[in-house]
Amino acid sequence: MTTIRIGIIGAGRIGKIHADNLLRLPGASLVAISDLFAGPELEQWAAERGIGRVTKSSEELIGHPHIDAVFICSSTDTHASLIKLAAQAGKHIFCEKPVSMDIALTEEAVEAAHRAGVKLQVGFNRRFDHNFRRVREHVQAGTVGEPHIVKITSRDPSPPPAEYVKVSGGIFMDMMIHDFDMARFLCGSEVVEVYAQGSVLIDPSFKEHGDIDTAMVTLRFANGALGVIDNSRQAVYGYDQRVEVFGSKGSVTVVNDHPNTAEVSTSEGIWRDKPLPFFLERYNAAYLEEARQFVDCLLRDKPPAVDGYDGLQAERIAAAAKLSFRLGRPVKLAEAIESAHAPDAIRHS
Amino acid sequence: MTTIRIGIIGAGRIGKIHADNLLRLPGASLVAISDLFAGPELEQWAAERGIGRVTKSSEELIGHPHIDAVFICSSTDTHASLIKLAAQAGKHIFCEKPVSMDIALTEEAVEAAHRAGVKLQVGFNRRFDHNFRRVREHVQAGTVGEPHIVKITSRDPSPPPAEYVKVSGGIFMDMMIHDFDMARFLCGSEVVEVYAQGSVLIDPSFKEHGDIDTAMVTLRFANGALGVIDNSRQAVYGYDQRVEVFGSKGSVTVVNDHPNTAEVSTSEGIWRDKPLPFFLERYNAAYLEEARQFVDCLLRDKPPAVDGYDGLQAERIAAAAKLSFRLGRPVKLAEAIESAHAPDAIRHS
Amino acid sequence: MTTIRIGIIGAGRIGKIHADNLLRLPGASLVAISDLFAGPELEQWAAERGIGRVTKSSEELIGHPHIDAVFICSSTDTHASLIKLAAQAGKHIFCEKPVSMDIALTEEAVEAAHRAGVKLQVGFNRRFDHNFRRVREHVQAGTVGEPHIVKITSRDPSPPPAEYVKVSGGIFMDMMIHDFDMARFLCGSEVVEVYAQGSVLIDPSFKEHGDIDTAMVTLRFANGALGVIDNSRQAVYGYDQRVEVFGSKGSVTVVNDHPNTAEVSTSEGIWRDKPLPFFLERYNAAYLEEARQFVDCLLRDKPPAVDGYDGLQAERIAAAAKLSFRLGRPVKLAEAIESAHAPDAIRHS
Amino acid sequence: MTTIRIGIIGAGRIGKIHADNLLRLPGASLVAISDLFAGPELEQWAAERGIGRVTKSSEELIGHPHIDAVFICSSTDTHASLIKLAAQAGKHIFCEKPVSMDIALTEEAVEAAHRAGVKLQVGFNRRFDHNFRRVREHVQAGTVGEPHIVKITSRDPSPPPAEYVKVSGGIFMDMMIHDFDMARFLCGSEVVEVYAQGSVLIDPSFKEHGDIDTAMVTLRFANGALGVIDNSRQAVYGYDQRVEVFGSKGSVTVVNDHPNTAEVSTSEGIWRDKPLPFFLERYNAAYLEEARQFVDCLLRDKPPAVDGYDGLQAERIAAAAKLSFRLGRPVKLAEAIESAHAPDAIRHS
Repeated sequence: MTTIRIGIIGAGRIGKIHADNLLRLPGASLVAISDLFAGPELEQWAAERGIGRVTKSSEELIGHPHIDAVFICSSTDTHASLIKLAAQAGKHIFCEKPVSMDIALTEEAVEAAHRAGVKLQVGFNRRFDHNFRRVREHVQAGTVGEPHIVKITSRDPSPPPAEYVKVSGGIFMDMMIHDFDMARFLCGSEVVEVYAQGSVLIDPSFKEHGDIDTAMVTLRFANGALGVIDNSRQAVYGYDQRVEVFGSKGSVTVVNDHPNTAEVSTSEGIWRDKPLPFFLERYNAAYLEEARQFVDCLLRDKPPAVDGYDGLQAERIAAAAKLSFRLGRPVKLAEAIESAHAPDAIRHS
Repeated sequence: MTTIRIGIIGAGRIGKIHADNLLRLPGASLVAISDLFAGPELEQWAAERGIGRVTKSSEELIGHPHIDAVFICSSTDTHASLIKLAAQAGKHIFCEKPVSMDIALTEEAVEAAHRAGVKLQVGFNRRFDHNFRRVREHVQAGTVGEPHIVKITSRDPSPPPAEYVKVSGGIFMDMMIHDFDMARFLCGSEVVEVYAQGSVLIDPSFKEHGDIDTAMVTLRFANGALGVIDNSRQAVYGYDQRVEVFGSKGSVTVVNDHPNTAEVSTSEGIWRDKPLPFFLERYNAAYLEEARQFVDCLLRDKPPAVDGYDGLQAERIAAAAKLSFRLGRPVKLAEAIESAHAPDAIRHS
Repeated sequence: MTTIRIGIIGAGRIGKIHADNLLRLPGASLVAISDLFAGPELEQWAAERGIGRVTKSSEELIGHPHIDAVFICSSTDTHASLIKLAAQAGKHIFCEKPVSMDIALTEEAVEAAHRAGVKLQVGFNRRFDHNFRRVREHVQAGTVGEPHIVKITSRDPSPPPAEYVKVSGGIFMDMMIHDFDMARFLCGSEVVEVYAQGSVLIDPSFKEHGDIDTAMVTLRFANGALGVIDNSRQAVYGYDQRVEVFGSKGSVTVVNDHPNTAEVSTSEGIWRDKPLPFFLERYNAAYLEEARQFVDCLLRDKPPAVDGYDGLQAERIAAAAKLSFRLGRPVKLAEAIESAHAPDAIRHS
Repeated sequence: MTTIRIGIIGAGRIGKIHADNLLRLPGASLVAISDLFAGPELEQWAAERGIGRVTKSSEELIGHPHIDAVFICSSTDTHASLIKLAAQAGKHIFCEKPVSMDIALTEEAVEAAHRAGVKLQVGFNRRFDHNFRRVREHVQAGTVGEPHIVKITSRDPSPPPAEYVKVSGGIFMDMMIHDFDMARFLCGSEVVEVYAQGSVLIDPSFKEHGDIDTAMVTLRFANGALGVIDNSRQAVYGYDQRVEVFGSKGSVTVVNDHPNTAEVSTSEGIWRDKPLPFFLERYNAAYLEEARQFVDCLLRDKPPAVDGYDGLQAERIAAAAKLSFRLGRPVKLAEAIESAHAPDAIRHS
């Protein structure tokens, strides 16, 4: 193959970001987009970009003979079944995170892609961010030696709307799942145990939806390293995305990106502008890079940079965190996996 | 009183630091020093500084009629009984941390000072550090709003000798106790629950002594805020002392102090010198300031900046952390206190 | 007009950058490109991008009835006559810097555009950089009060090839001209006097070409403010682009952009990666933004952000610097302008 | 000698700083202080410190048989003759900067000390600052290669009182003289030419006293390197003391010291406290270190770290800057020296 012909399923915000990135990518050809609510507006949007086909049917898109790969950008509850459908049709798959909120379902979907021999990349875009990638490089290069402590700060500038919170799957599955993946990515060792704490400190409505807005989760890795992730739904100074890996030979940290380097000194003090406001600004280049690497792994027949197993493991850690928070005690990952397969496991917990 | 006449008990490293600081302080007069192993060397050291009296007996020093206050800088196992002795003698007390490794003993000592109406300041020197004090000021001034998350990083440049480790009381009581006090100081709310994790990643000999060299403890505060402290016995780049308080209106962080601001740019990259190497360099000014404030609180009859209750609470949190680590589950502070008073509580656990 | 139809003259590196940016810009349509050495390679390059017309003749391109505006990206010695030609043809003009190396010629070209009523924007791309723009905003907003001191550091990572140096017009006209424009832009006041110093410290071949590789120029502004610019042809740590404006109410500085925020602490020290390597990386977004604003000023019939007068003034300062360096004394801008119009002024000095 | 017995001449602010530092220094014994206006207040001040002798007569102090060395901290116009007097008496000399405002006088004084075989250290305290010393070390170690560009920023937080300005000798001799010395110290090459510019932008009263409040001076060094110094009498954000040395292998910069590292992030931006307010705070440790090294050079019979020639050269550069500013053109150092010795040289210009 010299060009990957791609269809996008789901024309929401993230589907459109992927569309615009794919249009800029050599080696990729965006040929179709589907959306349940496709109408004149989407058709015009597609026409302006020369995307030839717009449909309401994801099945039709998946089945289209001129499509090599699909980007699954629809709502989370549709991901697992769409992966299975695409796998059966022999199409390569890029799927937004999380694959599902139900470990057993995710396992089935990942397994289906594996059996069908199609590539499956999961949308953990932060792995492609220039800052975190650099940390990973340093860890892999041994710059900081054997990792001992991993610290991740991840805070949103403001809470999502209540309707979103209701169906989000909770802070661990919706927000911290990125950080669970990041922890594995940076440490290079599997998480074996989790202890989750949380509070409602920002908006009482989180409590109504059985959720929390402030969370702190500690991790134990297989290599004995310790980790901690803190999440807040509201950092008034903007999107806060920092990490540190501390090891036997030193430490590497990354701090936030800023819109400029201007520093002002006045009689009041020294100040600068707030960090980049949110994920669209901060991870702009990372979204492009993850699409580029997905297309590249198809063109060169390489394994994807973030595969189904990565998607699955992050969900398992999130499930363990949910369980830990409910039980008020540390939970081993094995216990969470077992619990997901217990006869009385609630599929849509 | 216009001058506080002071005797120091214990002429080890920390006792001598306090001596040199007291000699520089207006309002303080250092009149005597005692040490179990006092000999010609200490006598000469004292003579060079004009300290009139050197003795082997702490009792004699405490009982001396020309002494208003004592600095207890002897080994930890002597602190509690010396506090009681000094209290009975009506002498004001500065006591190095921890008061003891046994909560019940510490309670008795603190109570003894209280009953005797003498002032008792505990040596949590970091509260007087310019960086942490500034964080505290910002929290108190409401700059960051209501605290939600408190993060403390505290790492030593290299492990202490094995002989020290053996009698240190363990990482929670010996090293992290500073951070437990810092957490209360910065958050302005009491710790109610603790979960402690740890690993031996630096030196296997810690295991032999029933200790760990890498620790991570999460805290829950009475106001719902969450905290985390990480400790390592070996940060190869030097003494690492950083904190962050994140709240409803923002965040305040402090990073390490450096010996200079020189930044070098070469074809290899941009680099600067490591932070100040260890506590003597970093907390040099803080030691002077804690002595100054102790003397000042006597001169003006004010409450001490860090009192017996502060010493006691830090030890209770450390005890809870020890228990949590042993049990592998979160422990409420109340449980640790109860446990300390149980009939079978091991006094010297 | 709702779409500006544009032709590019000169398909070198900078012409191609502008091409790719124009292709991404809503409101712009890139319809043709001309280059003296146009051939199959350029034709394929254009075909891949859907640029309909490739020609060797800039005259043909300028005269094309379906072209509204031209980007002059050919060699500097062709700029002035192409501006006059385009102006006569009623085409709007974006011209790379400098307009020419001869003040009188530049004056004629600027005047021709003015008489023809076409817009002329000069390619001082750094004005559109996020860092410098922020400094300008602070100065205009009065954040630093009345400017007193302007400092500009501008150093290249490595010297250009000798063939380039030979025809470059010298460091003042080729390299520092950006900084002369920046000085006016940031200070908001005209330069009235210049004193230039220089040395050959990097490569003796600069001397052979009558040039220098290290330069320092001080400026006096009409408002009494003082300025200094330093240039080096070789900063081994990368492209160095920093400024400071100091005034009655404070100071604003910008430092370099870096590829990431990773900071590594080891037993050797604290270090980070070098700044972005050169202008393509550093001013990537600025090139897009200058094209966007040029198109925007045509669409909305606004004055261009950097006009012919700006181009002319920067050249006048550069000419004054050259004269100052030759005479070894400060030179007033008026003197340099006069000198350029003297009967014996050497046109191609 | 195992103890240097010292007398201080001049009990103003700087004399008292030296006194308190000498009292802390092992190897030094402060035995006397003289001041034209000595009275009960100074006597009490001296008594509190155990300084045995207070006198109005500097001659008496210099002549005292139990004094090995003198600190000359009286007004500048007395320095040169006191140096000569002390030299005749065979006393070692620490003299505050500048030695005088008249090059010929300074030459005589330096020569007198030389002939008498006594050590003479000049009070360029900034050489002993941790930041600038580190820059010097990097330059000497070759970290940045051969120096090409030296940049010094030196700004006071607020102008001195008008009475001081009147007798200060002007900004070049009073304030920038520190920076002239710093330039030589950092570059390791002699200044050969100077061009000085200045403005009155802060307070018109500077003009009345024939002075300026904002100055920029460029330097040419013997090795071809270029330098620039900017001074302002009023940086509203505090004492601003930064330098950069750029060379063939890289660059080293130092920025200001701050009272703490606290960084606050709010919805308004990111800010920190202003730098240390003025020289007493910033150069506190440097004053102690220069006294220590002076005492040390006497104890070990080594050359002083900053000698009479250093004092002389800084004054010559200042004189060249004054001349350059008056003539409006660059001035060679040789020209300024010659001019100082011209028959019509005004001794107290």
